[in-house]
Amino acid sequence: MILGASIVTAIPQSRVQQIRSFLRQQDLQAWIAWRPDELLMLSGYFPFWGASLMICFADAEPVLFVPQIEPRDHIPAGLRVQDYSWGDLKCSDPYSALVSAAGNELVKARIQREQVGMNPSASRISLPIQAAEQIPIPEGFAGQLSPLTAKPDAKPQAAFADLYLRKTPEEIDAIRLANRVANAGLQVFFENLKPGIAEAEIAGAVESAIYRQIGRDGIFHSRGWAMVQSGPNSADAGRFNRSTGRHLENGDLVLIELATCVNGYWSDLTRTAAVGSPKAEVEQILAVAREAQQAAVEGVRPGVSAGDVDALARDRIAAQGLSSFFTHHTGHHVGFRYHDPGFLILPGESAKLEPGMVITIEPGVYVPQRGAGARIEDNVLVAESGHEVLSRIEGSMQL
Amino acid sequence: MILGASIVTAIPQSRVQQIRSFLRQQDLQAWIAWRPDELLMLSGYFPFWGASLMICFADAEPVLFVPQIEPRDHIPAGLRVQDYSWGDLKCSDPYSALVSAAGNELVKARIQREQVGMNPSASRISLPIQAAEQIPIPEGFAGQLSPLTAKPDAKPQAAFADLYLRKTPEEIDAIRLANRVANAGLQVFFENLKPGIAEAEIAGAVESAIYRQIGRDGIFHSRGWAMVQSGPNSADAGRFNRSTGRHLENGDLVLIELATCVNGYWSDLTRTAAVGSPKAEVEQILAVAREAQQAAVEGVRPGVSAGDVDALARDRIAAQGLSSFFTHHTGHHVGFRYHDPGFLILPGESAKLEPGMVITIEPGVYVPQRGAGARIEDNVLVAESGHEVLSRIEGSMQL
Repeated sequence: MILGASIVTAIPQSRVQQIRSFLRQQDLQAWIAWRPDELLMLSGYFPFWGASLMICFADAEPVLFVPQIEPRDHIPAGLRVQDYSWGDLKCSDPYSALVSAAGNELVKARIQREQVGMNPSASRISLPIQAAEQIPIPEGFAGQLSPLTAKPDAKPQAAFADLYLRKTPEEIDAIRLANRVANAGLQVFFENLKPGIAEAEIAGAVESAIYRQIGRDGIFHSRGWAMVQSGPNSADAGRFNRSTGRHLENGDLVLIELATCVNGYWSDLTRTAAVGSPKAEVEQILAVAREAQQAAVEGVRPGVSAGDVDALARDRIAAQGLSSFFTHHTGHHVGFRYHDPGFLILPGESAKLEPGMVITIEPGVYVPQRGAGARIEDNVLVAESGHEVLSRIEGSMQL
Repeated sequence: MILGASIVTAIPQSRVQQIRSFLRQQDLQAWIAWRPDELLMLSGYFPFWGASLMICFADAEPVLFVPQIEPRDHIPAGLRVQDYSWGDLKCSDPYSALVSAAGNELVKARIQREQVGMNPSASRISLPIQAAEQIPIPEGFAGQLSPLTAKPDAKPQAAFADLYLRKTPEEIDAIRLANRVANAGLQVFFENLKPGIAEAEIAGAVESAIYRQIGRDGIFHSRGWAMVQSGPNSADAGRFNRSTGRHLENGDLVLIELATCVNGYWSDLTRTAAVGSPKAEVEQILAVAREAQQAAVEGVRPGVSAGDVDALARDRIAAQGLSSFFTHHTGHHVGFRYHDPGFLILPGESAKLEPGMVITIEPGVYVPQRGAGARIEDNVLVAESGHEVLSRIEGSMQL
């Protein structure tokens, strides 16, 4: 099958209405979006190069600017698209052309710069399909756009970040698919847990299983970042996740941190398993991580505070005398990015869970003195009542 | 083997001297570096999280600030390191702490803001070891640093970019290693060229072969981004590279674009091969791409202009009446990034090649009407006389 007509998507009308309400509330007439996760949320379009820009209007249809070399087959039907000359042999400053084109659209719509908002920060945003380098939009670009936009104002940016928090039913389906794909990778992880194999070899096999899902079930982009830590390396997993050349040994705990992006939507999972028979003091670490994670997952429901969910995990770990070995938050929002913006699930956080939110639940225990660490992480949807664990799926993808 | 003492690296003294000369020439006393490729070039240190910052001084040893959760075993011996509280459960704004710490160092050294330079642009910079999202340093960070630095000035930034152009012998060895690893991936590509296999399956297997080199030959980080395009999809390869679920067929051209990062150093390669027996009009495309690439590679030597090298490739393609199907530049600098800054190898470029430069040579021919495209890309060192093709290596890595 050639990638093509089969993956025409639609503009998500609920998001179109939402951005219009947002603009009116903020006394704005237009929003300039260019971050890959922002484009995806607002239009259903996930950029290839990461050099696309969209203007959303309070009172008109949006317009999308893409480099002339951008693939077109995954741009949603009905979205108005303009080319600009990025990728052209003869164009020395494509961004000037882009700024001019965007400015023309704003002038045509008789919109003043005080009525235009944007979010300039690229911190931890989603990489586009071309993921081997940071996106090409230069730092100076926000400055180039400043004649078109109001002085960056923290207030609309913070309000905009709030739009990430509650996912639509279609977005939840897309995140569910990302988790289904991630589970295909995790199946490879579990199949490879045997003494003698290297961490990096397992991680590479997991990523390969994720990549080869492309072409199935409407998947046009599927990429995993797997990091495997075994034995004493697992005790580092609360600070960083990477794979080394260490070979698994009997008695190890083995942890995999797995980021997966499918068609722009993200899953963020962790599993920990034992090889052979670990010592009791090592088994305890895995048992308490599982117990803490299960307790926090069970506490996810509308109206509960993030701090209360965190406490459910943290208290179980404290009850085993291991609280100083759980050094990070219990979770974060996920779906448009590996780490979506929004409140964290951490001690004392009073923000309350609401239906449509998708969060990670990922307590961990890392004890260097025992040469072992464990974390279990799932992606959990806050349902109308209770929750749904999106990452515990019956029937994995074909490998 | 546990990753550890075996990968202690050294600060590259020639680069330390070079940045000091640069600062004096620019009437500066300090340079603030935070981009992963910049840190690597100046100190030999490749960041894990991408949230590290280094101050280089004209008259003192550099100081490196790293998040407290940064791994330490690949920080060069002898480099002065300070922690800051990024990754701490209780730290809500780690960058304020970082800016304060950096400011203190500048005050201690009695350096005024007019004497401090930095490069704020994150466009197309190297991703750090944690490569699943853009680096965490926020856009506002350059602004937060502005009380410490002179108004961003294009002149020192342009002069700084010039430092990327000539690689040291140690850096050339590191780029050679990246190419050796990439060749292990390419071996998997060639072994998998058979009808029925999907593009994405080949690409996943190539990336897996690259990942599993970690732990060998001092390799602590090895990641590939492989994109495979077959048959009619190969005709898109001049505009974008991605893998689809298309299954290879007899008579296809199959193109792989492969970015590889080993310990922070980059290789950028392309190969094209035929499956079975393509039609003559398709064979011609591959033959002319090979011929054009070989001609340009043979023309690489000190003193020749980039435009003349481009012409060597372009003229061969024009001689076949196919010039309108070679739509991009012939090459770019490579090594610290997938695409290093610096002049391009393109028509009319008068900049001259110098010993130590490493460039790609990658002409391509893409003919949608024939359902085929081809590109061959190597990484070529400009030697004291002539050149060395770093990516044509006898004796690949073990698979």
